[in-house]
Amino acid sequence: MLELGDRIAVTKDGVRREGVLMPSVSGRVVIKMESGYNAGFDPERSVVELLARGKALKVPPPPPLPRSEGLPKVSILSTGGTIASKVDYRTGAVTSQFSAEEIISSIPELLEIANYEGKVIYNILSENMKAEYWQVLARAVGSEIEKGAAGVIITHGTDTMTYTAAALSFMVKTPVPIVLVGSQRSSDRPSSDAAMNAISAARVATTDIAEVTVVMHGSTSDDFCLVHRGTRVRKMHTSRRDAFRSINQHPIARVLYPSRDLEILGDFRRRGEVELEVNDRLEPRCALVKYFPGGSPDLFEECIAAGYRGIVLEGTGLGHVASDWVGSIKAATDAGVPVVITSQCLRGRVCDRVYDTGRDILAAGGIEGGDILPEVALVKLMWALANTGSVDEAEAVMKISLAGEISASTPTTV
Amino acid sequence: MLELGDRIAVTKDGVRREGVLMPSVSGRVVIKMESGYNAGFDPERSVVELLARGKALKVPPPPPLPRSEGLPKVSILSTGGTIASKVDYRTGAVTSQFSAEEIISSIPELLEIANYEGKVIYNILSENMKAEYWQVLARAVGSEIEKGAAGVIITHGTDTMTYTAAALSFMVKTPVPIVLVGSQRSSDRPSSDAAMNAISAARVATTDIAEVTVVMHGSTSDDFCLVHRGTRVRKMHTSRRDAFRSINQHPIARVLYPSRDLEILGDFRRRGEVELEVNDRLEPRCALVKYFPGGSPDLFEECIAAGYRGIVLEGTGLGHVASDWVGSIKAATDAGVPVVITSQCLRGRVCDRVYDTGRDILAAGGIEGGDILPEVALVKLMWALANTGSVDEAEAVMKISLAGEISASTPTTV
Repeated sequence: MLELGDRIAVTKDGVRREGVLMPSVSGRVVIKMESGYNAGFDPERSVVELLARGKALKVPPPPPLPRSEGLPKVSILSTGGTIASKVDYRTGAVTSQFSAEEIISSIPELLEIANYEGKVIYNILSENMKAEYWQVLARAVGSEIEKGAAGVIITHGTDTMTYTAAALSFMVKTPVPIVLVGSQRSSDRPSSDAAMNAISAARVATTDIAEVTVVMHGSTSDDFCLVHRGTRVRKMHTSRRDAFRSINQHPIARVLYPSRDLEILGDFRRRGEVELEVNDRLEPRCALVKYFPGGSPDLFEECIAAGYRGIVLEGTGLGHVASDWVGSIKAATDAGVPVVITSQCLRGRVCDRVYDTGRDILAAGGIEGGDILPEVALVKLMWALANTGSVDEAEAVMKISLAGEISASTPTTV
Repeated sequence: MLELGDRIAVTKDGVRREGVLMPSVSGRVVIKMESGYNAGFDPERSVVELLARGKALKVPPPPPLPRSEGLPKVSILSTGGTIASKVDYRTGAVTSQFSAEEIISSIPELLEIANYEGKVIYNILSENMKAEYWQVLARAVGSEIEKGAAGVIITHGTDTMTYTAAALSFMVKTPVPIVLVGSQRSSDRPSSDAAMNAISAARVATTDIAEVTVVMHGSTSDDFCLVHRGTRVRKMHTSRRDAFRSINQHPIARVLYPSRDLEILGDFRRRGEVELEVNDRLEPRCALVKYFPGGSPDLFEECIAAGYRGIVLEGTGLGHVASDWVGSIKAATDAGVPVVITSQCLRGRVCDRVYDTGRDILAAGGIEGGDILPEVALVKLMWALANTGSVDEAEAVMKISLAGEISASTPTTV
């Protein structure tokens, strides 16, 4: 009988991998490999071999959280992801179940900044995120703020973190900081960014920056984290720790490390400026369609036929698609399906009045996305369609800034 | 009767615009506005008013091109775009019909570098580019090289220039430089990049860099152009002159301006290393599908139903899509439709072995795209499906580098 912590080999489809047997909630055989990564295997289709007995890994009950007089109260909501893992130094294993208590006990600096309440909202792979999870999360955030949290930290997988940040930006008007944080490398790897990101997130959660922000490494040198507006940030690298970049806008601030000094870089809404308001309705049937040369409008038309209620087009350059798409755009908007025009360049603004194609797209009812990111336009469209009385109102909302996601002019240096 | 060069006002749908009447081949009324941009109007749906007579604009026949002994022969192929426009300084108007003679006569420095042959291949808006135009262009390039060109320059609209560069990279094995160049601002605007880009392109066309490259501004200071490998470059800003950036690889070189000194930054294939070979077959029924949280696999499945022969998936992070897409990927690959996995992060490499979802995608037959750009993967898939004997061979080709588009490791600093 295998025990957690045992060193085993798993062979599947002719490939053999060695590692330490890990806790698993999915029924799969999960091992921690030399690389630091976990691998999971279907036990029905794998051959498992015991290599050496480890010390039995028993997950201890979390210690009670210490409290310090005079520190603000911050809520930590966990949704899963690499940061929601904590190494067990006796076995080298990473526990797959997160608790705020565990993350805090492994990063003692956090206790200098605030007192914490932890809650697991769900534990999913970030790529499985969807609109209904954003709604659950928005309500949970609202509830923590109602209960008096001075700030809310959300731990999140990095793959779709910026989509979630945008969704919360539109759903929650907040009088306190709401900070999303994750890590690109799990905490058992020497290069892990988990601790520094978490400490910086806690710092931001206790500042005056009462917006939805993403706090992640700003460089690869462990010297500062950047504080990005939730509607202006994008994951721009698959693996680097400083993958997150503000697009078309400077970051709001940076947190120096290890001093935790805050350097303000841009404007922000201050603590207490607005009352808490959670508008958690979303229209999930919205699609993001990326144009490519020679792309046929048939896939675009299929969105309409399939009942999508809104479409964001990621065009080339200034937001252009081929001339033969214009008729399909008109058909969509005639059918009451808004079409928002954005650019696959990501940086800069769409400007559809300059060339013939752009003017034709506008004449067909396309909505100029300005300098909004395509992914943010998608989330905003989901929100706008569900929180306005008509498609016309939703279209009007798409043209104005609700949460700093679009601006009349774009700085040329970002 | 209006004459070219007249100052007119055009009112359409209640909007009035003033400008100089321009030559037009499309039957539309084209004016050059104060902003420097052209606008075209349907004469049936516009009211035109004469404001002031201009000097009649007669396009003079192009002067014969001067030839200098001892300079290499370079072909300039025009496909349209902002760079294929030349200001007439008498009227402020921009002629919409390009000839190599005209571009050369407006940029005399070009004559210090080479002797030129010019040819208009077509004159289309870059967003209307498609596979069959790439094929025409590949054959035209091949023909120029066969006729002894020491280098080929292709002027191109910037929106889809990098797709074309990728297509030529796969279709043409070249013993001489093939350089794509464009401009972000037309040559009558004070900030135009047309002349400096064209001069730098001519410089590269006479060097030893026998690859398909894109030559565009490297900064906003008019001090150098970058030479990007055709399979590693992306337009990363809608309007900046230095919009083009090498991704996951350093540029091959830069051309200092105005000295025209060449600084080599990376490896490249040298002049004469390979024989000319044009393999211009393409399978145009390939699609690029961008994943987003909550995205239903129905649109992906629709690609299969609609007869697409290959699909590039732009996943999140390391190349992930939601678990409920895995079955659709398997259905596609079972049906002989290759599915290539790339990342919407753009930078970095997909690595589908780390997390469960990634391994499931690979088990379902997904092909790891390494550090290839999604757009380049699309073009390569079109080429691979048409130039190999089977889907299996095409899939094998997708995993190896044909033109520097994919590498075993990615530098962390790009």
